[in-house]
Amino acid sequence: MRNIDQHSITAAVVDSFDGCDSPRLKQLMTSLVTHLHDFAREVKLTEAEWAQGIAFLTATGQKCDDKRQEFILLSDVLGLSMLTVAMNNDKPAGCTEATVFGPFFVEGAPHYAHGDDVANGAAGEPCEVRGTVRGLRGEPIADAVIDVWQADAGGHYDVQHAGLDHAQGRGVLRSGPDGGFHFRTIVAEAYPIPTDGPVGVLLEATGRHPWRPAHLHFKIEAAGYEPLITHVFRDGDTWLDSDAVFGVRQSLVAEWAAQADGTHRLDFGFVLNPARR
Amino acid sequence: MRNIDQHSITAAVVDSFDGCDSPRLKQLMTSLVTHLHDFAREVKLTEAEWAQGIAFLTATGQKCDDKRQEFILLSDVLGLSMLTVAMNNDKPAGCTEATVFGPFFVEGAPHYAHGDDVANGAAGEPCEVRGTVRGLRGEPIADAVIDVWQADAGGHYDVQHAGLDHAQGRGVLRSGPDGGFHFRTIVAEAYPIPTDGPVGVLLEATGRHPWRPAHLHFKIEAAGYEPLITHVFRDGDTWLDSDAVFGVRQSLVAEWAAQADGTHRLDFGFVLNPARR
Repeated sequence: MRNIDQHSITAAVVDSFDGCDSPRLKQLMTSLVTHLHDFAREVKLTEAEWAQGIAFLTATGQKCDDKRQEFILLSDVLGLSMLTVAMNNDKPAGCTEATVFGPFFVEGAPHYAHGDDVANGAAGEPCEVRGTVRGLRGEPIADAVIDVWQADAGGHYDVQHAGLDHAQGRGVLRSGPDGGFHFRTIVAEAYPIPTDGPVGVLLEATGRHPWRPAHLHFKIEAAGYEPLITHVFRDGDTWLDSDAVFGVRQSLVAEWAAQADGTHRLDFGFVLNPARR
Repeated sequence: MRNIDQHSITAAVVDSFDGCDSPRLKQLMTSLVTHLHDFAREVKLTEAEWAQGIAFLTATGQKCDDKRQEFILLSDVLGLSMLTVAMNNDKPAGCTEATVFGPFFVEGAPHYAHGDDVANGAAGEPCEVRGTVRGLRGEPIADAVIDVWQADAGGHYDVQHAGLDHAQGRGVLRSGPDGGFHFRTIVAEAYPIPTDGPVGVLLEATGRHPWRPAHLHFKIEAAGYEPLITHVFRDGDTWLDSDAVFGVRQSLVAEWAAQADGTHRLDFGFVLNPARR
């Protein structure tokens, strides 16, 4: 390793992991370094670009706090989050597909009974959501724990409203004996991801918009089944074909049907995969 | 882009840069995303590993301040810094090779005359350094501006000593009419890079040591020539074959020769590349 040049260096770095006790970590670092170097050689990265990259990553880390995770946002807009979700949640045909978790889930949301209003004061057009939780053979799954969360009409989640001290547009329900559940809330609306940090600068510089199509988040857990983390997207949304975080799957797009009384209604059937041994 | 899966997602992300005004930025992001996704697929990155990666990058950004740049350190230990230097400083045979800049350069170091003691109180064994600055045809380069900097016997640069308010082991000289310069200082010693941050955790987890072989930094600038940023490494050092930042090139290894009076002496000839048009 005394003759480091732009070609020999990759083997030198890979060899430096020879003493790594964890075969998996060694595999991860070997692949990471090989791809990182291949990228730099492929584009012939300049010293100024390298310095800009260091400054960008530093600013991204420094934007993070207990309410903001800019590195997750970066992973989201580069499609790495959705790629990781897709690879790790491959399911048999017929199961509801997974999509990105997003940064706005809150552990310990209030529990609601069927028919309650989960909006809890959030601004928006009223709607009713009716769902079922079933297995692959159509069997109803009772007592599933269902977390739902969503943005309000202004495109913000409750946690984004400074000073709001209670949950809005967020709650936990349980499926009944027939696997069914229902609640009232507001209609989901499209919203931009936060653009006041380095990720916003990247989107602007690359000519990309920050919008996510309207969606309702679900996390469903039931004994004997794999947990499901997904969204239901609203059919007809402008951004369905250019989601800023690449989360859309056609099977997750559904109609919020307009009702005679001016409200909307969403019906959606969730199908869980049996737990893997 | 409604049928995102682990294979289709890369094209979807690449296509999202279609509106980028800068062809170079588009090329950089396309290559970066392609390699990032290929890495994730190649190792089948798990959701827990992804989360660990996000936490690591966040901690790396948050370790940075006005005296510490942990992302440069990360780039150094992954060989990206040296790769970037090597790619951008390809020179004709006979020129002195470049190596990593490192994080310890300080703009505006004190100016010294030939024969002065650059150590300025830093602890270590005394030595004399004699150098020449020449062009490829052997022509002497007069009036070159030569920055030198180095660690002390304890393995620390002056800027790492809290409370020290003046330069030690650091200074600026000018070559004479014959291209020559000389100064007194202390013998360079091996030292570990800082391990009290995420990069230290990474080195430990992968079974790597943090040591850099003993070296003296040089930055040489002269009108009509390319700037040269390099080190001279000390022959016989334990870590020459496993430099933690992959900076060693055999042509930069030299002898600090023991003198009859117990001091050491380094002689080194620097050859600059003509400036490119």
